Amino acid sequence: MTLPTDLFVPNLSGDRFEVQYRITGSEEEAWGKARNIAVEQTVEFPVHLIPDSNLLTEIVGQLEAFTPVGEGVTMVTISYPVEIVGAELTQLINVVQGLTSLIDGVRVEALALPRSLLAHYRGPRFGSAGWHDAVQVWDRPLLCTAIKPMGLTNPQLADMAYRCALGGIDIVKDDHGLADQPFSRFEERVPVCAEAVARANAEAGRHAVYAPNITAPADQILSRARFAREAGAGALLIAPAIVGFDAVRMVADDDRVALPILSHPTLSGNFVGSERRGFSYYVYYGQLHRLAGADSPIFVNHGGRFPTTRADSEGLLAGCTVPMGDLKPAMPCPGGGMTLERIDELRDMYGSDAILLFGGGLHSAGDDLTENVRTFVQMLE
Amino acid sequence: MTLPTDLFVPNLSGDRFEVQYRITGSEEEAWGKARNIAVEQTVEFPVHLIPDSNLLTEIVGQLEAFTPVGEGVTMVTISYPVEIVGAELTQLINVVQGLTSLIDGVRVEALALPRSLLAHYRGPRFGSAGWHDAVQVWDRPLLCTAIKPMGLTNPQLADMAYRCALGGIDIVKDDHGLADQPFSRFEERVPVCAEAVARANAEAGRHAVYAPNITAPADQILSRARFAREAGAGALLIAPAIVGFDAVRMVADDDRVALPILSHPTLSGNFVGSERRGFSYYVYYGQLHRLAGADSPIFVNHGGRFPTTRADSEGLLAGCTVPMGDLKPAMPCPGGGMTLERIDELRDMYGSDAILLFGGGLHSAGDDLTENVRTFVQMLE
Repeated sequence: MTLPTDLFVPNLSGDRFEVQYRITGSEEEAWGKARNIAVEQTVEFPVHLIPDSNLLTEIVGQLEAFTPVGEGVTMVTISYPVEIVGAELTQLINVVQGLTSLIDGVRVEALALPRSLLAHYRGPRFGSAGWHDAVQVWDRPLLCTAIKPMGLTNPQLADMAYRCALGGIDIVKDDHGLADQPFSRFEERVPVCAEAVARANAEAGRHAVYAPNITAPADQILSRARFAREAGAGALLIAPAIVGFDAVRMVADDDRVALPILSHPTLSGNFVGSERRGFSYYVYYGQLHRLAGADSPIFVNHGGRFPTTRADSEGLLAGCTVPMGDLKPAMPCPGGGMTLERIDELRDMYGSDAILLFGGGLHSAGDDLTENVRTFVQMLE
Repeated sequence: MTLPTDLFVPNLSGDRFEVQYRITGSEEEAWGKARNIAVEQTVEFPVHLIPDSNLLTEIVGQLEAFTPVGEGVTMVTISYPVEIVGAELTQLINVVQGLTSLIDGVRVEALALPRSLLAHYRGPRFGSAGWHDAVQVWDRPLLCTAIKPMGLTNPQLADMAYRCALGGIDIVKDDHGLADQPFSRFEERVPVCAEAVARANAEAGRHAVYAPNITAPADQILSRARFAREAGAGALLIAPAIVGFDAVRMVADDDRVALPILSHPTLSGNFVGSERRGFSYYVYYGQLHRLAGADSPIFVNHGGRFPTTRADSEGLLAGCTVPMGDLKPAMPCPGGGMTLERIDELRDMYGSDAILLFGGGLHSAGDDLTENVRTFVQMLE
């Protein structure tokens, strides 16, 4: 045993944040897992080797609640001192889940963060109200589509963006498959698409925004975001599961960028695909996205071409809007196989503070893309 | 239908890369999923709306192999043109898995990348041979431990690093719970720990290295890596599942840093925790880590305190060493509840080109940490 016996962590405020875990298994297994999480996510050290001190009593996670909810599921709440995550989203995520990600039967269900911790996060710069202001549409959900498929030239993509904006789209984004390829260079694509949308806006008297994809090499994310802003982009698209949540935070916090951010769910199925592990929609697409400053998480809505449930979507909606200190709400962006027939249902569920994303469904609706968009917008109005 | 009918993607080289997917379900389901992947990961567009062109025949993924392997599992190989991923690791990962991450019953099993694609990646700067040279130990696996637990002061952590290095440790790393906290500021911790290891090296006549944790906010990763290098760190620790693989690549490629990189598996359970989804150990800890330039993936070895299998570990070992153009092999770093009794077994399995990580097992072995390390090193020699 080699730890100093006078071990004492100074200046702990007493402020703690809480993580609720959904644990699958018997109550006995849940007790064991809860105990392991409390140690694994903090000291990760044999507890019997730690001298009696506040490191043991305060740094190690504390069990705050243990609630069997039936069918071999227990909801467990563990609290941690705010000091162990400092001011960094990377370390917050590390403590919330970390190596516990490797344990089957443990899902991160909800976070409760005190103001002293939330004070480190600006959150969404625009949020729901900011989105409405950005496109000057206040009384209905916003309409979004993607320019695609990959393989089109930049002029072809720009033409598609023009036609969507002319029809009244609110947000036209890059497909997430558009990066910086020989057939569509980022620095060529962004100016022509932004110009095309601006031209359509001038003709139609609207305020559509173009959101290029800045999911990019780590050392180019911020420069592409700034380039996009200067080239006339009105929003941005980025995939946090690929670049990390804190890269989103970096962009959101940058005053030279200052554009609303759509996050893309590519790769996110690793984090949200199971009741037995990963994160709930509430935490992953809601709370973590808001901490990262994303204004709108795109996600695959239930009933589309992906196997997700209405409860998932409801969880996301709750995570986007639950009070979190001074953080603005985020605006859900359901997509993933949405069709015209579902507009009323989507509107009923998400209200006006949502962005409805239509891809193939919009293109399939008729031969004239501009007319298709007009029809969709009329359905929303 | 609004796509141009003269659609043709110019300048395709014909070079393709292949992704092998493990698909769970009946053969019929596997056919359906394979077809969906080929579309979803490329054009993500209703195929019947795409005019007859090379976009349809070459950009859309092509089925190269379909092999039922029994028990409701089919191995499917799909190829993609190298042009759609450009020169970016972020986009490669996006195409390899992307939204298919949301589909249950599809795991990314192996990548086969042509030289024209691999040419964009430097890979591990050191690799196995470089690690041996760095610590001047060539004939046995290297020994690694972490300074921990979080809550110790920097002088206490430095003292622990000193005692480990004096005993003959090869690599002493930060615990992954050490970030930049009030009780252990990064810029204070790194110099004192590096100095402590240097002092022990001078006394013991050895060449241990200290690896601080640079898992950090996106805009501080590179600056912390450079700071660490200047402060005397001999290696680095970073968690790709938190910061994204390309942030590792950014650090690995930086000539001012130029230190061997240990990757940490925190949060990685989301990507590797299931046979039904995510990635194989072969791809995730092996191939992707090497593309990102990590010299050594830390992972939880089978038989420790996490539920992983020997087949997982073998897959990782294969992914670290399989020929990938000119990319150097990475050096596996098994950890996660390893004890002294397992040294022979670990050595038999991984040979000399491995880093054996002992945490609690090293501390528990006896009262004197330096003596514990000496015992472990003797066991290895």
